[in-house]
Amino acid sequence: MITLASDFGSPYPSAMRGVICAESDARIEDVAHDFPRHDVRAAAFWLREVLPYFPPAVHCVVVDPGVGTDRDAIVLRVGEHALVAPDNGVVLPVARELAGLAPGDPLDTAADVAAFVVDDEDAASSTFHGRDVFAPAAAAVHDAGVADADSLARLTSTDPGSLVDCTLPEATIEGERAEGEVLVVDDFGNAITNVPGDFLAGASAVTVDGTRTPVGDTFAAVSEGDRLVTVGSHGNVECDVNQGRGDEAFGLAPGDTVVLERC
Amino acid sequence: MITLASDFGSPYPSAMRGVICAESDARIEDVAHDFPRHDVRAAAFWLREVLPYFPPAVHCVVVDPGVGTDRDAIVLRVGEHALVAPDNGVVLPVARELAGLAPGDPLDTAADVAAFVVDDEDAASSTFHGRDVFAPAAAAVHDAGVADADSLARLTSTDPGSLVDCTLPEATIEGERAEGEVLVVDDFGNAITNVPGDFLAGASAVTVDGTRTPVGDTFAAVSEGDRLVTVGSHGNVECDVNQGRGDEAFGLAPGDTVVLERC
Amino acid sequence: MITLASDFGSPYPSAMRGVICAESDARIEDVAHDFPRHDVRAAAFWLREVLPYFPPAVHCVVVDPGVGTDRDAIVLRVGEHALVAPDNGVVLPVARELAGLAPGDPLDTAADVAAFVVDDEDAASSTFHGRDVFAPAAAAVHDAGVADADSLARLTSTDPGSLVDCTLPEATIEGERAEGEVLVVDDFGNAITNVPGDFLAGASAVTVDGTRTPVGDTFAAVSEGDRLVTVGSHGNVECDVNQGRGDEAFGLAPGDTVVLERC
Repeated sequence: MITLASDFGSPYPSAMRGVICAESDARIEDVAHDFPRHDVRAAAFWLREVLPYFPPAVHCVVVDPGVGTDRDAIVLRVGEHALVAPDNGVVLPVARELAGLAPGDPLDTAADVAAFVVDDEDAASSTFHGRDVFAPAAAAVHDAGVADADSLARLTSTDPGSLVDCTLPEATIEGERAEGEVLVVDDFGNAITNVPGDFLAGASAVTVDGTRTPVGDTFAAVSEGDRLVTVGSHGNVECDVNQGRGDEAFGLAPGDTVVLERC
Repeated sequence: MITLASDFGSPYPSAMRGVICAESDARIEDVAHDFPRHDVRAAAFWLREVLPYFPPAVHCVVVDPGVGTDRDAIVLRVGEHALVAPDNGVVLPVARELAGLAPGDPLDTAADVAAFVVDDEDAASSTFHGRDVFAPAAAAVHDAGVADADSLARLTSTDPGSLVDCTLPEATIEGERAEGEVLVVDDFGNAITNVPGDFLAGASAVTVDGTRTPVGDTFAAVSEGDRLVTVGSHGNVECDVNQGRGDEAFGLAPGDTVVLERC
Repeated sequence: MITLASDFGSPYPSAMRGVICAESDARIEDVAHDFPRHDVRAAAFWLREVLPYFPPAVHCVVVDPGVGTDRDAIVLRVGEHALVAPDNGVVLPVARELAGLAPGDPLDTAADVAAFVVDDEDAASSTFHGRDVFAPAAAAVHDAGVADADSLARLTSTDPGSLVDCTLPEATIEGERAEGEVLVVDDFGNAITNVPGDFLAGASAVTVDGTRTPVGDTFAAVSEGDRLVTVGSHGNVECDVNQGRGDEAFGLAPGDTVVLERC
């Protein structure tokens, strides 16, 4: 199986799909092609949340503001998974998750991790490496088998510890106060923070940037249209509205600082 | 085959896809993930229009404003199809359609219908049952076989007649006059009403809320940019514009009353 | 394999998917369902750019402003590919590309091209031939085999040279000056012109409608937010912004004339 994720919108991903189908019988499953454009960190967050639910697969990820520069194209093998992506950190958080590492751990401390640089000298374009570099590499890794990726002539082994890193910011928690950041806003308008969900344990309300807000186990804990704070499916604190948009109600956007206080 | 339908947008459906792929070799086909958010009736309409075209399959549907409350997760078996969904009525209209029942008929009057409640006590989250309850249930029903769904320990048989219902409103037709409602607006801007298409039989024009409008067999019956009334592919009367948006031209939105008079 | 492309948005393509699945075991891959609505030329451009990357397949294309009129539904066989579409020119540019013809060449000058008209008299609707005519025809051609499409009773052979044509406009190049047109704007906001990329060969800057603009090999040749002109993955000149929208910065929309001068 090959999964595809990008910030390409449409129809560019179908050219990648065509290239893969022309080279491989791999089943293809889309993850998303509407990641916030050029936003490596947001993509890194979503990939970490979603890819671990898949069975072992080759995950082809292209959020690549540096396409055509000298940044490398890499294949990162983590156990039975392979991540094919630009070397800009976008797959590092999910790689750590798949390897059982904590967010800050160096990637080369895991036993089952290997990294390779993809030879992209013959790329037909300098603006669409999704089609010309990453899709062919994903197909090749899939067909060789993830365990035998190092048999591919176009791959050169490299040190996993040398890859460009991306770490999601961590919230600061002091007693009853958490200062965090909005990592992403999802399509429902839920403002997903980096504050760990257990900060809410036992609380029936918190202040969000000074405004008292009920804590709910689920959206319907408050009336339709009302605000709440809950623990989302990713385990982090979210600022939500039941059947509405939390980002608008709380005035929060990705990157915004958010201060929560238990009350 | 498992079909997926939701109001989730992106990328949450890919977590469901991952869960299914990890548990089953089922082919997955997307129906839509952009149903109007939290709108059980709109989703119920589209599912009734689309799912009957599929071969027998497990249809996993998550439009679920009550996620995390005590509403049940259900499996509804209709012949060789299985519908996996929250017990909020969203799959009742399509279930009737698949069972050959009329819109008002009690579901338990069909011979080949069975209903089950899914045990969701171990759900990992209380806000993403698509991933944690419905996707695993769909995979399990698929792999057990729709006919053998009752062999699954996590399913408990229940009375199909006890499920939460959802019926689409019916138009009132008196002679040359129909008073109906806009059920949904499609992506083209066509305002799809609940007035049966045969109301237009033999008419060359009708008034729509008082404005005379030509009746056409197809969009091109009028000039580009002009309004018309036609019978859509679902068999209902639509208020359309040839190569334009009917909702804007007629000033119609879902839920609006619309009065048609033959003239 | 059957590919699907349309301007349908959602959820209409899933009815086509259902019809195909009910009739065939073909693998289905989406190309795009958000082509600019009713825009045959834009779809023709994208299909020419994307479909050639696929292995031999049946490509079902529905951008069909004339649905329900007497325009024909056609099957166009080009080598091992089959294009199933309305007879409005939408697949002619990609057919020429697949047949190895130049943009202006008559289609019947290629050796491996055959055309058929689909019998659509029994179509259940006059507004959704994607579901009622094109999807069944694609499934039938797939299952019969592209080489044996002429064995299908519902297909009648016709002259490929008689099909409605669509040619993308060509730029006029005189010395250091090119007068072209914006063909499409992609989801990144890149304004893709019809000026061949080799017009930029050796140039470090051009004027775009009088404004001096650097030529870059790739987006990152200029600072984030700055304008550049580059050769896109399709081989044409694009007006872009690094990590921004070229259409907005240059004030360009599809159909606009654009004048480039080397400087």
